[in-house]
Amino acid sequence: MKILILGGDGYLGWPTSMHLASKGHNVAIVDNMSKRVWEAECSVEPLFPISTIATRISIFERLTGFKIDTYVGDIAKNHRFIYKVFQEFSPDAIIHYAEQPSAPYSMKSRESCFETQRNNVLGNLNVMFAMAKYTPNAHLIKLGTMGEYGTPNIDIEEGWLDITHKGRKDRVLYPKKPHSFYHLSKVHDSHNLEFGCRVWGLKVTDLNQGVVYGTSTKETDLDPKLFTSFHYDHIFGTVLNRFLVQSVANIPLTIYGDGTQTRPALNINDTIKCVEIALNNPASKGEFRVFNQFTESFKINDLANLVKEVGDEESLNVNIQNIDNPRTEQMSHYYNAKNTNLKDLGLNPIYLSKNVLKEMLLKVIEYKNRIDIKTIMPDIKWAKK
Amino acid sequence: MKILILGGDGYLGWPTSMHLASKGHNVAIVDNMSKRVWEAECSVEPLFPISTIATRISIFERLTGFKIDTYVGDIAKNHRFIYKVFQEFSPDAIIHYAEQPSAPYSMKSRESCFETQRNNVLGNLNVMFAMAKYTPNAHLIKLGTMGEYGTPNIDIEEGWLDITHKGRKDRVLYPKKPHSFYHLSKVHDSHNLEFGCRVWGLKVTDLNQGVVYGTSTKETDLDPKLFTSFHYDHIFGTVLNRFLVQSVANIPLTIYGDGTQTRPALNINDTIKCVEIALNNPASKGEFRVFNQFTESFKINDLANLVKEVGDEESLNVNIQNIDNPRTEQMSHYYNAKNTNLKDLGLNPIYLSKNVLKEMLLKVIEYKNRIDIKTIMPDIKWAKK
Repeated sequence: MKILILGGDGYLGWPTSMHLASKGHNVAIVDNMSKRVWEAECSVEPLFPISTIATRISIFERLTGFKIDTYVGDIAKNHRFIYKVFQEFSPDAIIHYAEQPSAPYSMKSRESCFETQRNNVLGNLNVMFAMAKYTPNAHLIKLGTMGEYGTPNIDIEEGWLDITHKGRKDRVLYPKKPHSFYHLSKVHDSHNLEFGCRVWGLKVTDLNQGVVYGTSTKETDLDPKLFTSFHYDHIFGTVLNRFLVQSVANIPLTIYGDGTQTRPALNINDTIKCVEIALNNPASKGEFRVFNQFTESFKINDLANLVKEVGDEESLNVNIQNIDNPRTEQMSHYYNAKNTNLKDLGLNPIYLSKNVLKEMLLKVIEYKNRIDIKTIMPDIKWAKK
Repeated sequence: MKILILGGDGYLGWPTSMHLASKGHNVAIVDNMSKRVWEAECSVEPLFPISTIATRISIFERLTGFKIDTYVGDIAKNHRFIYKVFQEFSPDAIIHYAEQPSAPYSMKSRESCFETQRNNVLGNLNVMFAMAKYTPNAHLIKLGTMGEYGTPNIDIEEGWLDITHKGRKDRVLYPKKPHSFYHLSKVHDSHNLEFGCRVWGLKVTDLNQGVVYGTSTKETDLDPKLFTSFHYDHIFGTVLNRFLVQSVANIPLTIYGDGTQTRPALNINDTIKCVEIALNNPASKGEFRVFNQFTESFKINDLANLVKEVGDEESLNVNIQNIDNPRTEQMSHYYNAKNTNLKDLGLNPIYLSKNVLKEMLLKVIEYKNRIDIKTIMPDIKWAKK
C-alpha cells in the first residue's frame, strides 16, 4: 500500500513510518520540522538525541533494507506543496499526525493558541482538499484525542451518539467539551472531516487517542539513532513519561491538583497497532468513522503510585507531591469511555504493568545525564489572573 | 454603554450601529472592508449603491446628531490592531459580525474555504484574547447561525441539550452537523467561546441566527446614502431577498431542489431588536449563553409562493422554477427549532406578511435598473465531480 505519513518526524509518526515500511508498504513522510521549532522556542529537548530525518531514514534503510521517502514542507502554509505530494505519490492511505500536539503549548499565549489552531485546522483543510482533488478514494486516518470529549457525566461513546430527545431519535456527533485550545483544534478538525465525508464522500477514520506512554518500539530499538522523540517536559511531555523522568532525576512526581482526574492511556506500541488496524480495515466511501484509541484508564494518583512502586524497587526512593493544578479541569469526575471498536478489529492491548514500566525506567536511567529538570515544572496556567 | 461593533460596515452591522448610536450609546465600528473585497472578487454588487463608511457616518451624524467612531483594520491578521482598539475604546459590550458570511463563498474553492475559516476562527480567537486581556467583564454578543445545527431528526434546543444516556444525565453543547464550511466556522467559534467562558470567565451570548430578509430599517430610511448592503446574488444573497429581485427582474424564482427544505428566518429589524435585547440582558460571568435568533420557519416552497402571490398582485407575473440543488442538504426533513429565549426577554416579532413583502418589493422595483441577472444563478456546487 502507498502510505503517506503526515508528521512522520514526530514521537508517533516516526515509529509508525518505520513499522509500516518494515511491513513492506511504500511509505513517504511529510513533515515541516515544526515540532523541532516549537521545542527550540520553548527551550526543551527530547530525552534522547534525535537525528535529522535524513539520517534516521538512511540508517533505517542500511539496517533493514526498507526505504522511506520524504517530502519536507508545510501543509498549512503551502497548499501547492501538499497538492504536489498527493499528485506525485498518489497515496492509498494517509496517516495524519501533522499537528501541534501539546495542550500547554496551546495555552501559553495568544500567539501559541493562534499558531495551534492555524496549523492544525487549516493544515487539515488543505489535506481534505488535496484528497478530494487527487485521491478521492484514499483512506484518511486522522489522529484526534480523547481530550476532545472532556469529562462528561455520561458514558463516552466512539464519536457518535444514538440519542433520544422528547421521544424522537437521531444519531449525532458526540457532543464535546474539550480541555484546551489544542483539544479544540481537533474538535474543529473532526467537524470539518465529518462534513468532507458527507459532501465529498471522503473515507475517514478519526482516532481519538488517549495519553501515549513509552520509549521504544521494535524498530526504534534497532539503533540509538532510530530512537523517537521522547518528551518529559511540562509542555510536550505526557504524564507517565514525565513521572518516570522525575523518579530518575530524584525529584518528586508532580501531581496536578488532587490527582483524582481520570485519563485514558495506551502504550506507544499499541498506537502503531491501532493505526495499522485502521489501515487494514478502511472506512467506507463517505464514512466518518471514529475509534476511541486507548487501552486503559487511570487516575493520575494511580499512575504516580505505580511509578513510585517500580522506582522504589530500583532503589530510586520516589516521592510524590501535589501541586496547584495549572489547568482548569474537573477533579473526581465520572469517566466511562468506550473503546471496543479497535478491540473488535483485533487489538490485543499491551496493558501497563510493572514490567513495562521497569523497561521504560531502565532506558530513562541510561540517559539520566540529559535530563533538564528546569523544564519539568509547569508555568503555563489555564486561568487568566 | 460603550459598544464596539465588529463588522459594522456590513448588511447587519451598519443598521445595528446606527440604531444603537440613535439610542444614545457610544458606538465604534471595527471593519477591514473585506466584504467589499469579497464582493469585488466574485463580481457581485449590492442592489443599492453603498457609500464609504466615512460618508455613511458623516451623513448619519449630519441627519441625527449622533456620532459613530471607526477603526479600520483586520482583527484576524493583526492582533496588535484589535488589542489597541480594546485598550483605547474599552467597550462594555462587543457585537461581533466580522465574519465571512456566505455559505456558497466558503464552498467556492480551497482558497475561499481556507479564507473563511482563517478569517472567522482566527479573528474570533483574537477577539477572545483581547477581551480577556483588556475588558474581561465586557459582554460579547457573537453572531452565529441556525445552519450550525443542520437538520437533525430531534428538536433543536438553544445551544445546550439536557441529555439522558444509559440512565445518566448531563447538559451538553447541542451536537451539530452544519451545512457548509462557513457554517462550520461558526461551530468552531462556538466551541472556542464556550471554552473561553469556562476557563477565563468570559461573558458570551451566541446568537444562532436564521436567514435574514429585509431592505430597510428606521435609520437606513433616513437617506439613500444610509442604505444597507442588500444582496440578491447567488453568493451573498439570502433566499427571500433573491426571490424578490427575481420577481422584479421578470425571471423565475429559482428553488434549489424540490423546495421542501425548511429554513428559519427573521426580519432585519428583528435582528437589531434581538441584538439589543441581548445587550440589555447580558450573559453572566463565565456564561456561554445561546439564543436561537429567528421568528418563523418556512419551507422554501412557501416563501416562493408568497413572493409569487405578492408579485402577481403588483402585476409582475411571477414564475417559479425548480433547479438542481447545488448544495448537499436534506429535503423533506423534520424541523422543530426552539426560539423562546429572546421572546421571553421581550422580543415581539415582525412576522412575514404580504404587507412586509410588498414594501420590500416596491423598494427593489425602485432600483430595478441595477439588477445584474448574471449574478443570480448558482454555479458553486457542494459535491465534487
